[in-house]
Amino acid sequence: MPPIITLLTDFGTADNYVGEVKGTLLSRVHGAALFDITHQVPPGDLRAGQYILARVWHRFPQGTVHLVVVDPGVGTARRALAAGAAGHFFVAPDNGLLSCLPGDAHFVSLPIPPGAAPTFHARDVFAQAAAQLAIGASLTQLGHTITDAHRSPLGDVARGQLVALVGSGGTVEIAVRDGSAARLLGVGVGAEVRA
Amino acid sequence: MPPIITLLTDFGTADNYVGEVKGTLLSRVHGAALFDITHQVPPGDLRAGQYILARVWHRFPQGTVHLVVVDPGVGTARRALAAGAAGHFFVAPDNGLLSCLPGDAHFVSLPIPPGAAPTFHARDVFAQAAAQLAIGASLTQLGHTITDAHRSPLGDVARGQLVALVGSGGTVEIAVRDGSAARLLGVGVGAEVRA
Amino acid sequence: MPPIITLLTDFGTADNYVGEVKGTLLSRVHGAALFDITHQVPPGDLRAGQYILARVWHRFPQGTVHLVVVDPGVGTARRALAAGAAGHFFVAPDNGLLSCLPGDAHFVSLPIPPGAAPTFHARDVFAQAAAQLAIGASLTQLGHTITDAHRSPLGDVARGQLVALVGSGGTVEIAVRDGSAARLLGVGVGAEVRA
Repeated sequence: MPPIITLLTDFGTADNYVGEVKGTLLSRVHGAALFDITHQVPPGDLRAGQYILARVWHRFPQGTVHLVVVDPGVGTARRALAAGAAGHFFVAPDNGLLSCLPGDAHFVSLPIPPGAAPTFHARDVFAQAAAQLAIGASLTQLGHTITDAHRSPLGDVARGQLVALVGSGGTVEIAVRDGSAARLLGVGVGAEVRA
Repeated sequence: MPPIITLLTDFGTADNYVGEVKGTLLSRVHGAALFDITHQVPPGDLRAGQYILARVWHRFPQGTVHLVVVDPGVGTARRALAAGAAGHFFVAPDNGLLSCLPGDAHFVSLPIPPGAAPTFHARDVFAQAAAQLAIGASLTQLGHTITDAHRSPLGDVARGQLVALVGSGGTVEIAVRDGSAARLLGVGVGAEVRA
Repeated sequence: MPPIITLLTDFGTADNYVGEVKGTLLSRVHGAALFDITHQVPPGDLRAGQYILARVWHRFPQGTVHLVVVDPGVGTARRALAAGAAGHFFVAPDNGLLSCLPGDAHFVSLPIPPGAAPTFHARDVFAQAAAQLAIGASLTQLGHTITDAHRSPLGDVARGQLVALVGSGGTVEIAVRDGSAARLLGVGVGAEVRA
């Protein structure tokens, strides 16, 4: 069977980022089957990303590689991780996104290749590692094992806070972290939108 | 050839629902090729869903399974259907969505498996049935035949009404049922938007 | 390996257009693997379309066919092109979209089949040509060679101009060419929208 790779990011789908990641994966894994979970996680919202991952990953068949990039620390020095749990594989920044995995998950720290764009690890670090896992590399071939105690916890984010998100296409969206803007605002069909 | 399954829903693409359906399909149909028609049908808009289905399904090759879930009655007791027409297969709620199929379409009523989440039949009823059809089950293996006279007609919806839609990600969209918000509002390219 | 076809358009993903193109491709190329680059190029924004194409195409493996339709001249008599460069293939309107290809790219002019819908060349011209390329047709089998001097340059577009975009689903979006609507308008949460 062709390897399955899922994508879960906060990149939006209006520009070149998702396309570059997909092309990079396909150039390294011939015949890979790619499936978008979503690319509309609110930018940098780790809890939303973690929630969606926790709901979705175990629905896919064993052997699936899940590329998960929601990264408020993009461009900073936080580590890159790969993990294995229940026959699934994961690549993600070390920012707590993977804290939903089972307790016996195996984590390794991924080296950052020379020349990787600091602001595009999804393409230059995570897609490379996901491709290697998809074609059969083991976690220990990719990096050195790290223990749970050395992984970053999920960062605190303000919950229930109303935010206006500017979409990558320049549109304006109204959302609530970890909640429903509609419920918080009490709006429904036909609601008027005022300040 | 790998089985082809298309997805047409009003779920939006910002959360976990579409991902859970895709994972469920792939876990049951090894190597399935999944294609999103759209997940942005205005929530509950049966006419929009039916229109898009009618325009798209016959463009796909014979043998394709179309999973169509637009469901204003989610959580209620309406039936679940599977259908076959012109070499294609369909699964959808019994709410008129499939009233665009040819007159000689064959319909069966799908049983609701024990344990199916009442609010997520897309995953627990329709994805299961779509997977069975994709791997070669016949309609009569899935449920008992029902006649056209026993199927629900397409429900009435208010047409031409200006509505604010709350997307699954908490965004707010302005739309007109069965019409153009731009035309109704008289706005076009360059229309002024004031705060 | 199954042929790879990418899609890059300004159609949005809320209606039937992308689904019709995908079905048309799959009916002609059994087992084709389709990958969405994006369908959210601002309508008619050639510079945005060209930029995304330039960033993405070379990430995919050789042999990929890229279907690119951003077309302010939809319905008019502008030519349809197919091109080959660096082992990749492209189909697009002759409006400058492909001006990012390498200098030694080979261009041919595609004939418009009788019966092609004037406003849906993506389905009736470009998807047909992309399918032929995906199954091994050569560029010279598709049309007659044209030289660089005979291709259209990329048209000028106003930058920084506030525009209201009408989504294919009848929604209204506010955007700025090459900029941020939110920044230009100084709007945030709860901004009132008047027509």
